[in-house]
Amino acid sequence: MSLPVSPLAPAQFPTLPAISGVRFATANSGMRYKGRDDLLLAVFPEGTSVAGVFTKNSMPGEPVVWGRKILSKGTARALVVNSGIANVFTGAAGTETVLQTARTAAELVGGLPEEVYVASTGVIGNKVPTEYITNTLPGMMDGLDEGNAEAAAKAILTTDTFAKGATATCKIGDQTVTLSGFAKGSGMIAPDMATMLAFLFTDANIPSAILQQLLAETNEKSFNCVTVDSDTSTSDTALLFATNTAGNTAPSSATDPALDGFRAALLEIMQDLAIQIAKDGEGASKFITVNVTGAESDTSAKVIALAIANSPLVKTAIAGEDANWGRVVMAVGKSGEKADRDNLRLEICGVLIAEKGAPFAGYKEEQITDHMKGQDITIDVDVAVGTGTSTAWTCDLTHGYIEINADYRS
Amino acid sequence: MSLPVSPLAPAQFPTLPAISGVRFATANSGMRYKGRDDLLLAVFPEGTSVAGVFTKNSMPGEPVVWGRKILSKGTARALVVNSGIANVFTGAAGTETVLQTARTAAELVGGLPEEVYVASTGVIGNKVPTEYITNTLPGMMDGLDEGNAEAAAKAILTTDTFAKGATATCKIGDQTVTLSGFAKGSGMIAPDMATMLAFLFTDANIPSAILQQLLAETNEKSFNCVTVDSDTSTSDTALLFATNTAGNTAPSSATDPALDGFRAALLEIMQDLAIQIAKDGEGASKFITVNVTGAESDTSAKVIALAIANSPLVKTAIAGEDANWGRVVMAVGKSGEKADRDNLRLEICGVLIAEKGAPFAGYKEEQITDHMKGQDITIDVDVAVGTGTSTAWTCDLTHGYIEINADYRS
Repeated sequence: MSLPVSPLAPAQFPTLPAISGVRFATANSGMRYKGRDDLLLAVFPEGTSVAGVFTKNSMPGEPVVWGRKILSKGTARALVVNSGIANVFTGAAGTETVLQTARTAAELVGGLPEEVYVASTGVIGNKVPTEYITNTLPGMMDGLDEGNAEAAAKAILTTDTFAKGATATCKIGDQTVTLSGFAKGSGMIAPDMATMLAFLFTDANIPSAILQQLLAETNEKSFNCVTVDSDTSTSDTALLFATNTAGNTAPSSATDPALDGFRAALLEIMQDLAIQIAKDGEGASKFITVNVTGAESDTSAKVIALAIANSPLVKTAIAGEDANWGRVVMAVGKSGEKADRDNLRLEICGVLIAEKGAPFAGYKEEQITDHMKGQDITIDVDVAVGTGTSTAWTCDLTHGYIEINADYRS
Repeated sequence: MSLPVSPLAPAQFPTLPAISGVRFATANSGMRYKGRDDLLLAVFPEGTSVAGVFTKNSMPGEPVVWGRKILSKGTARALVVNSGIANVFTGAAGTETVLQTARTAAELVGGLPEEVYVASTGVIGNKVPTEYITNTLPGMMDGLDEGNAEAAAKAILTTDTFAKGATATCKIGDQTVTLSGFAKGSGMIAPDMATMLAFLFTDANIPSAILQQLLAETNEKSFNCVTVDSDTSTSDTALLFATNTAGNTAPSSATDPALDGFRAALLEIMQDLAIQIAKDGEGASKFITVNVTGAESDTSAKVIALAIANSPLVKTAIAGEDANWGRVVMAVGKSGEKADRDNLRLEICGVLIAEKGAPFAGYKEEQITDHMKGQDITIDVDVAVGTGTSTAWTCDLTHGYIEINADYRS
């Protein structure tokens, strides 16, 4: 099944600047896909720090189990990603695949197997034929190139309809550093598992413990704010590699003010990638931003924002260009979080619809009809119990979603 | 939009036996629907006990607020239900509608306004034009009849495609008692709110405090086990009325062994109605039963069962007749409940697919192909950490769901 490119796709893939010593090669392993590369090898210079966050799903894939295990070492020399088969729920064979992949890559690039990160995305419950990876990797060494980022971003896709990249620069002290990254994710594609993967690279000099704090904190405000269909993948992985080559003075802690610009730049590219994932959500025809204010806490605001963003009822109404705002009220109420019905305030696309627990007297549906026909829909809800705020990004729920997920094999 | 009757509908509405003194009348109020009755008046004899359970949504409709308030009184003389407008998020005007409805009905049938239960289902955020109810009620008194249960079951529907009834008899001591009831619910229909309403009647002699315990307990194993799309309505209400006319000796407590038969009969009709709601889920083409065993507790098992039953990924795969079992594993993992990946056991339609954390060696997909083409799909998962069990009922997610919810107004 060839999917049309999402109408919400950006005009083009951004030019990702080279990060000194971060080299990429891609190849077709022959494992599953034909006519496209499905294997990525990324190589990092000695001394590269690494941070990672992984799925909270309790049925994690073997690459996730491996990544969690080696993360405490804090250094990375290589990353191997295959698309097509996810290596999840594969028992001892799956563990062996990861080990052999890590050993092979370590022999090729130098370093230890515990410095090789692995990610897989695709069908769950199928064994990865390990030799397709280990036999292909040696031939990829000659192709390693700092300028290969776009090919790398493409090789990790499954049924995404466009490659997703982002970049930024910032200063740490007087030193300019560069960040860039790419991600994949589109929801759930039969017969594949949903998988959100993101790989981020920087030349900044930041120790792994600090890098980990920055990534975990930023992840809460970016990838953990995006949803397509509420189904948490077994393979979600975001990794941040820092080559430490930029020459900046190493920060003393995650709260070092010298990191303010880096933190902002990291958040910028992670939010950019998260939004691109929502815009490539299965069947997406509209991009939806949900802003919640006035909640008991930021955490509570996030639960409410995701309850709205995950509601099939809200998402189908938006697909139908119907400003059925009662469904937003319902979703706030089902979240289980504290909210004051009688002081609730709701705007859609900037139009005030309800306040003080009842429809706003001046609201007329024709005010919003044109907004609903657009591609960008914003929902602002104030739940009137505190100062907590949060934002979630998602897409609408259309026939395209059903076609992709139910009709794939027919 | 006229919807085709669900392919999962029962062959016919069951014959509901009269319960002495429980009389029904229906009428068209003119409020919204044409060519069908949209108003139900049910009248109960003096001395009728009542129990009720309501939505947990924190944005409840005014009829729910009213019902919660009067429940402690424990007696009921009438029930008034309108379909078409839900009286939710309507502020002070909504409160006034409920009060005037209760007062009018109490004057007509005797008793106090606090003995009149009210329910509304339909559009959220629209004010109910109270006079359509209060002006219609007096003319309905002459039509009150014990044999009108099917007409009553039809008057409360919104976009359900069939009326849902169930009945049972049992003994309390030597005395035979009768239970019957009807329900509505189909998920969420644009531009209406989802609303699950259920009304149950018995001639048994059971004090309201005991009746309440029985209803709350049984509700957990019936209506609280059914989901169409995970969106919790603002109007969900189940009421159980006992006329106390059957002549049985009143039970001493909810754990009185004399109630064993009644408890079982109540569970039977409530589960029957819950299953009928799943079978009338929007766009349903298949009925899905999810059985979870081996959980840490029954509560944990229920969370896991509902995570599977609410997964768009699982539901679209079943719509596509695809035994994509990896999605069930994913849903178990995303539930957040304790589960042992490496000892998980999974059967679909009785066919063993996975055990001990990996695909079962003897499983071949052709074993299950014919099962997946059928209308009844069963998923059995053992999560291997304890003895907790639960069952959830749902339907698949099809193009019909999108059509009903997004395309309604086009």
